[in-house]
Amino acid sequence: MFFHTGELQYHAKPDAPDPVFAKQVQELIGGQFGEMSVAMQYLFQGWSTRGNEKYRDLLMDTGTQELGHIEMLATMVARLLEGAPVYEQEKAASDPIVGAIMGGMNPQHAIVHGLGASPKDSNGVPWNAGYIVASGNLLADFRANVNAESQGRLQVARLYSMTDDKGVKDLFSFLLARDTMHQNQWLAAIKELEAKEGPIVPGTLPPEWEATEYSHILYTNSESSKELKWMNEPAPDGHKFTFGKPEPLSVKPELKPAPPEAHNSLPEDKLK
Amino acid sequence: MFFHTGELQYHAKPDAPDPVFAKQVQELIGGQFGEMSVAMQYLFQGWSTRGNEKYRDLLMDTGTQELGHIEMLATMVARLLEGAPVYEQEKAASDPIVGAIMGGMNPQHAIVHGLGASPKDSNGVPWNAGYIVASGNLLADFRANVNAESQGRLQVARLYSMTDDKGVKDLFSFLLARDTMHQNQWLAAIKELEAKEGPIVPGTLPPEWEATEYSHILYTNSESSKELKWMNEPAPDGHKFTFGKPEPLSVKPELKPAPPEAHNSLPEDKLK
Amino acid sequence: MFFHTGELQYHAKPDAPDPVFAKQVQELIGGQFGEMSVAMQYLFQGWSTRGNEKYRDLLMDTGTQELGHIEMLATMVARLLEGAPVYEQEKAASDPIVGAIMGGMNPQHAIVHGLGASPKDSNGVPWNAGYIVASGNLLADFRANVNAESQGRLQVARLYSMTDDKGVKDLFSFLLARDTMHQNQWLAAIKELEAKEGPIVPGTLPPEWEATEYSHILYTNSESSKELKWMNEPAPDGHKFTFGKPEPLSVKPELKPAPPEAHNSLPEDKLK
Amino acid sequence: MFFHTGELQYHAKPDAPDPVFAKQVQELIGGQFGEMSVAMQYLFQGWSTRGNEKYRDLLMDTGTQELGHIEMLATMVARLLEGAPVYEQEKAASDPIVGAIMGGMNPQHAIVHGLGASPKDSNGVPWNAGYIVASGNLLADFRANVNAESQGRLQVARLYSMTDDKGVKDLFSFLLARDTMHQNQWLAAIKELEAKEGPIVPGTLPPEWEATEYSHILYTNSESSKELKWMNEPAPDGHKFTFGKPEPLSVKPELKPAPPEAHNSLPEDKLK
Amino acid sequence: MFFHTGELQYHAKPDAPDPVFAKQVQELIGGQFGEMSVAMQYLFQGWSTRGNEKYRDLLMDTGTQELGHIEMLATMVARLLEGAPVYEQEKAASDPIVGAIMGGMNPQHAIVHGLGASPKDSNGVPWNAGYIVASGNLLADFRANVNAESQGRLQVARLYSMTDDKGVKDLFSFLLARDTMHQNQWLAAIKELEAKEGPIVPGTLPPEWEATEYSHILYTNSESSKELKWMNEPAPDGHKFTFGKPEPLSVKPELKPAPPEAHNSLPEDKLK
Amino acid sequence: MFFHTGELQYHAKPDAPDPVFAKQVQELIGGQFGEMSVAMQYLFQGWSTRGNEKYRDLLMDTGTQELGHIEMLATMVARLLEGAPVYEQEKAASDPIVGAIMGGMNPQHAIVHGLGASPKDSNGVPWNAGYIVASGNLLADFRANVNAESQGRLQVARLYSMTDDKGVKDLFSFLLARDTMHQNQWLAAIKELEAKEGPIVPGTLPPEWEATEYSHILYTNSESSKELKWMNEPAPDGHKFTFGKPEPLSVKPELKPAPPEAHNSLPEDKLK
Ligand SMILES: [Ca+2]
Ligand SMILES: [Ca+2]
Ligand SMILES: [Ca+2]
Ligand SMILES: [Ca+2]
Ligand SMILES: [Ca+2]
Ligand SMILES: [Ca+2]
Repeated sequence: MFFHTGELQYHAKPDAPDPVFAKQVQELIGGQFGEMSVAMQYLFQGWSTRGNEKYRDLLMDTGTQELGHIEMLATMVARLLEGAPVYEQEKAASDPIVGAIMGGMNPQHAIVHGLGASPKDSNGVPWNAGYIVASGNLLADFRANVNAESQGRLQVARLYSMTDDKGVKDLFSFLLARDTMHQNQWLAAIKELEAKEGPIVPGTLPPEWEATEYSHILYTNSESSKELKWMNEPAPDGHKFTFGKPEPLSVKPELKPAPPEAHNSLPEDKLK
Repeated sequence: MFFHTGELQYHAKPDAPDPVFAKQVQELIGGQFGEMSVAMQYLFQGWSTRGNEKYRDLLMDTGTQELGHIEMLATMVARLLEGAPVYEQEKAASDPIVGAIMGGMNPQHAIVHGLGASPKDSNGVPWNAGYIVASGNLLADFRANVNAESQGRLQVARLYSMTDDKGVKDLFSFLLARDTMHQNQWLAAIKELEAKEGPIVPGTLPPEWEATEYSHILYTNSESSKELKWMNEPAPDGHKFTFGKPEPLSVKPELKPAPPEAHNSLPEDKLK
Repeated sequence: MFFHTGELQYHAKPDAPDPVFAKQVQELIGGQFGEMSVAMQYLFQGWSTRGNEKYRDLLMDTGTQELGHIEMLATMVARLLEGAPVYEQEKAASDPIVGAIMGGMNPQHAIVHGLGASPKDSNGVPWNAGYIVASGNLLADFRANVNAESQGRLQVARLYSMTDDKGVKDLFSFLLARDTMHQNQWLAAIKELEAKEGPIVPGTLPPEWEATEYSHILYTNSESSKELKWMNEPAPDGHKFTFGKPEPLSVKPELKPAPPEAHNSLPEDKLK
Repeated sequence: MFFHTGELQYHAKPDAPDPVFAKQVQELIGGQFGEMSVAMQYLFQGWSTRGNEKYRDLLMDTGTQELGHIEMLATMVARLLEGAPVYEQEKAASDPIVGAIMGGMNPQHAIVHGLGASPKDSNGVPWNAGYIVASGNLLADFRANVNAESQGRLQVARLYSMTDDKGVKDLFSFLLARDTMHQNQWLAAIKELEAKEGPIVPGTLPPEWEATEYSHILYTNSESSKELKWMNEPAPDGHKFTFGKPEPLSVKPELKPAPPEAHNSLPEDKLK
Repeated sequence: MFFHTGELQYHAKPDAPDPVFAKQVQELIGGQFGEMSVAMQYLFQGWSTRGNEKYRDLLMDTGTQELGHIEMLATMVARLLEGAPVYEQEKAASDPIVGAIMGGMNPQHAIVHGLGASPKDSNGVPWNAGYIVASGNLLADFRANVNAESQGRLQVARLYSMTDDKGVKDLFSFLLARDTMHQNQWLAAIKELEAKEGPIVPGTLPPEWEATEYSHILYTNSESSKELKWMNEPAPDGHKFTFGKPEPLSVKPELKPAPPEAHNSLPEDKLK
Repeated sequence: MFFHTGELQYHAKPDAPDPVFAKQVQELIGGQFGEMSVAMQYLFQGWSTRGNEKYRDLLMDTGTQELGHIEMLATMVARLLEGAPVYEQEKAASDPIVGAIMGGMNPQHAIVHGLGASPKDSNGVPWNAGYIVASGNLLADFRANVNAESQGRLQVARLYSMTDDKGVKDLFSFLLARDTMHQNQWLAAIKELEAKEGPIVPGTLPPEWEATEYSHILYTNSESSKELKWMNEPAPDGHKFTFGKPEPLSVKPELKPAPPEAHNSLPEDKLK
């Protein structure tokens, strides 16, 4: 069960309005790796966790904090839109600075949301649950999590260079720090799980299910592949990597004609 | 530039038709972690790689092979639909076996695709590019890749238990093997990159951008967090983990009223 | 800022597994009016509220509880999937009961989520933020809210008839009650706001912006429109309703030809 | 059955081209609450209406008029794009006014649609049927309708301030008026239905299905909730509102381990 | 402007309920080539037509009729759902016929739409405007139209075999006929436009824009390409087809390193 | 099976950076008719082709080349983004040229992709498989193909006017040429198939399935329809076109009330 208090986890107050930057900050709210994604990803993973209490709790704790991150960014966006000339398009034709703002901002901030944040990315594409991962296999999912935190921190780092607003940078410094923690925690947990289950997910696969003769071949014709030094070392699962040339191991398929009810094209000999 | 020959990379021939299983195999083609996702993910990462030739080539080589995986699965789906009673719904009312097939198969296999595979998942949701990741940062993206191969191998393993068709299992044994290789290769490459750039993405971030006092705190009230043994060990980036209690570091935000042109609700005191 | 404890707000334990019903319950999690929608809708409305503290708090309080509703339903789905024959498709060909389960369940529950809930609707379509509403105008948005609670309670009521599992019905009885409360609260708040701002949103529109001669005409040729008794009463905004016949008030538009750079079809006289 | 004549319902002729505004007007065509949404919403509601002829006809009449509103806005967009420098991007680098137009317009107006309107919103996101509501319950759906007309009129009001083109404002004055009528009519119909079915949807729910002890509690810890005056009045359904403190009514759930075929993470004790 | 009368264009009354077939008929309403697609496609093409009055009118006339086709199919779906055991899931566990119905029907017909049609396809995926085409070039768009009518008639033909309900087949016989007319009309119009503009769209392209040495080469290594008889005849645009072997005409690209602000991976030599 | 070499099929090197144009070029990669669409469309059609070897091979050959077209455009986009001021938003407030670039470019090129191409259209909407067509009927699908190549060539032609960069125009001249070839080849193949199967898809429909009395009527009230000269000539299928006035051939439908479990609105007489 969830609880809420009105205070923000951290400060979220820009020095000045900037509607174009408000549009860009949306990536951190409703983008593929925005805070909506990590919040929902961790919560759904937590709700499906079976018999690993400490990880269920870690997921719920972290997901709950990410909800607070959406809150800070939504507040930041609302404030970046305060006091800016967003309803003055007619001035844009003569004043290029206003023109660039009116053309560069997210029109829905003015028309749809009345100067509030939107659950969408920096191009205005709505967030959708196809972004998130919850498989029931913790090692697989923690790899999704460390990826999400890596992509997310990368995006904050890029946005950091795109503004010189001190208030914005203050919030970003906190988000960067938390993404450092989250990368650290998932990496540590992955190390623990790999030690127990092995590095190849799922670790429970009966070996006879797998055509293991194809499990360590790098198929390539590229000269540069010789520079992949790790090809000379044992693979993470302890076996030996080998090189192979891409070649078909089977024949050209011939499909049977469809039944008449499909009204597909007639086979070639009937067409002749 | 790409080339194609008609032979399949591996065999893709079921022993018998099974339209309901054909629907489920679609997850491996057009699902979030199906072969369309890994193919497009590796190709777009390759096309954006700047100055790391060996990894550009590895991405292009692997992405090209995944295109061949789509091909095998599309062939398998087309054959699982051959010779099955997919246009005989009127029999379904009296014969429950046929009824379960007609109700359980993907209706678009019969109506839209004429017994061919579909670029959609096992629920018929079209594949979309929101699934894939290409950031320009190789360490971040290889984490996405090892996640994709983990989720993908997990799904093949689950489907393996859902059929006893030997032809299907033969193809799955090959896919399981290749996903083992792909997990191995991305894990090895990650290890190499982490050794050079450090474990926290992006490794190029100036330290003064980050509020480092918050970079290693696990915020939690959960009892079970004490069982996280790695909390007592150095974090992956070498610093020390600490515990913290979730608490607001800021105040409750008060947004300014919107301008009249927004036609937002009037602020409370004007409403009174 | 958000907090979480492990206990559920209410019981969520079915008497027996039922994978087909698990698929249908997904509508209440990730459907257009599922709990993800109301949670995100209320939170985004709250974060954008400017100067109406009591309503900001009401929105945040209610949205936070809806997060707990997702949690209960996700737990219910996970339990409806426990102990059911979801990986035994090969039995489906001979046993029609198993066949109906394997064909009728959501395949992603088995293949993608490992018996966990999914952030999708009952057809497996991912939840997306295009479902939610946050305009900055409280009267408009509370109307969206009472609609969402009406649709949501209606869906629970329909699902109530589709099971005789006592544990499921117990949870549904709680959800029905909370939707009653939420309809009550938004209706009461609407009444308050309408008293201050008038019934037509936005209440702040300068009257000279509107072609008021068209503001109260019911355009219709239908005989049955005479039975609309309220047409004889004052309209909600106090004016008088009138009947009109649908007729064009303007002429047929003629667009100018496109410039050559558009490579549109040539205009007709050039085509001749 | 539908009929069409070439004349527009009302004038749709701007004084001058304005490609950036054309992009923004798209919100009223293909946005969440644009005319495509209300047209399709009313038509699908009408087609599903069972045994309430006068409301079926009202829905069909209103939906049909909304089709004519799409027509006027599509014509307006086509004309806002006439005669503007939309294919002259190379000038944009030196002329900031042209630059702002080229950067601020919807590129698809030039590239995809050849200066025609698009069935998308102001960010270029395609309209989708996930926006609309048709439940078979008229009271629920009329609440959706009054919401849609409120959001729609609000958006026109905001766009009205963003242009000083008299031709555009003339069309907007008509749309504002029609949205006034539509809010009036749905409010009047809601009042009628509430009088018969009660205010809580669905009105046909057997009372024993509901855990009524939770139907009137406002769960909150917020100080400001005391200012909600309507908490002291009877709830819309006639019962008494009470305050409650958010607290769990159940325990922490423990899910059973998944079967081996799921290849989920092993439960914690097996991992040790 | 549009008008509506209550009568259907043609009969839409099944002999008996069939909820599974109702799900499948949805493909004709809200699928990629369902009636929503052709209706919206023709209307948006009509609204953008510049200076070709007779084709604008043809598009509007045809689009208007397609609206009536949605109406007939929505009515058919509503009736296929009347009187069927759609709320009796608890019977499904013991009665496999009911089980197949409950598992095979679209759950949203019961839960969301109250036995009404849905603006979605046969898998429950919402219709979206990404399906439709309106480019401003009539020849291009009429090709889209003849494709849409071809795919649509094909789908009706397939569904025709999947039922023996005489009422359903009666409606389908009308839809098949109208799709015949629509294929005929677009083919006739294409022939007229090709005679004027030539077969290659757009016909207005200055020849010097095109690298014409590559305009008639079939790149292939396939043996079977010799059987393409039309390779020996003049191409539709009057030129001569030739065969070519797929070969790169350029070099391997080398991208420059990204700027530091991108925080991309370091180039290889810095990594060493 | 697929193979790849590092060389590009054709040159893809702009003379100078242009981030706004990079955004617009995205339409050709991930738009409805971009290269991702034609590549996937041809490959899925090829994989489903049953018994028409030469067309299966033609589809696979062409689809494979389109993969190389994505590659060239992705390379072009990456280079249009090299060396441009994409991380300098703070300069935008004072320098309108920079402002127009920052506001007019795709923010995800900077924030998400690190100066790489994106699998999305010119508005940032992700590519999805709902764009593509693969029906199993070659005549239907080749019509889809000639449409796709027509729309695609039209879009390149429009973009050609929007830049004066010689490197960009060089690549476009190659794409225009290849789209000429592809229009030619599908038109030639269509002619062959129509000669065998007739012009109305599907050609295998038993005539008694169709209400042929409605197969050649143009329903219209438009004066301009008399100018459709082809109405006086034989229809493409050899029959005679006739004119008809749009009129209902059926009655107004009356749906039965829903069962109580639906909790729909009560029928009117019960409401009274
Ligand atoms: Ca995080
Ligand atoms: Ca792989
Ligand atoms: Ca609620
Ligand atoms: Ca309206
Ligand atoms: Ca048609
Ligand atoms: Ca092409």
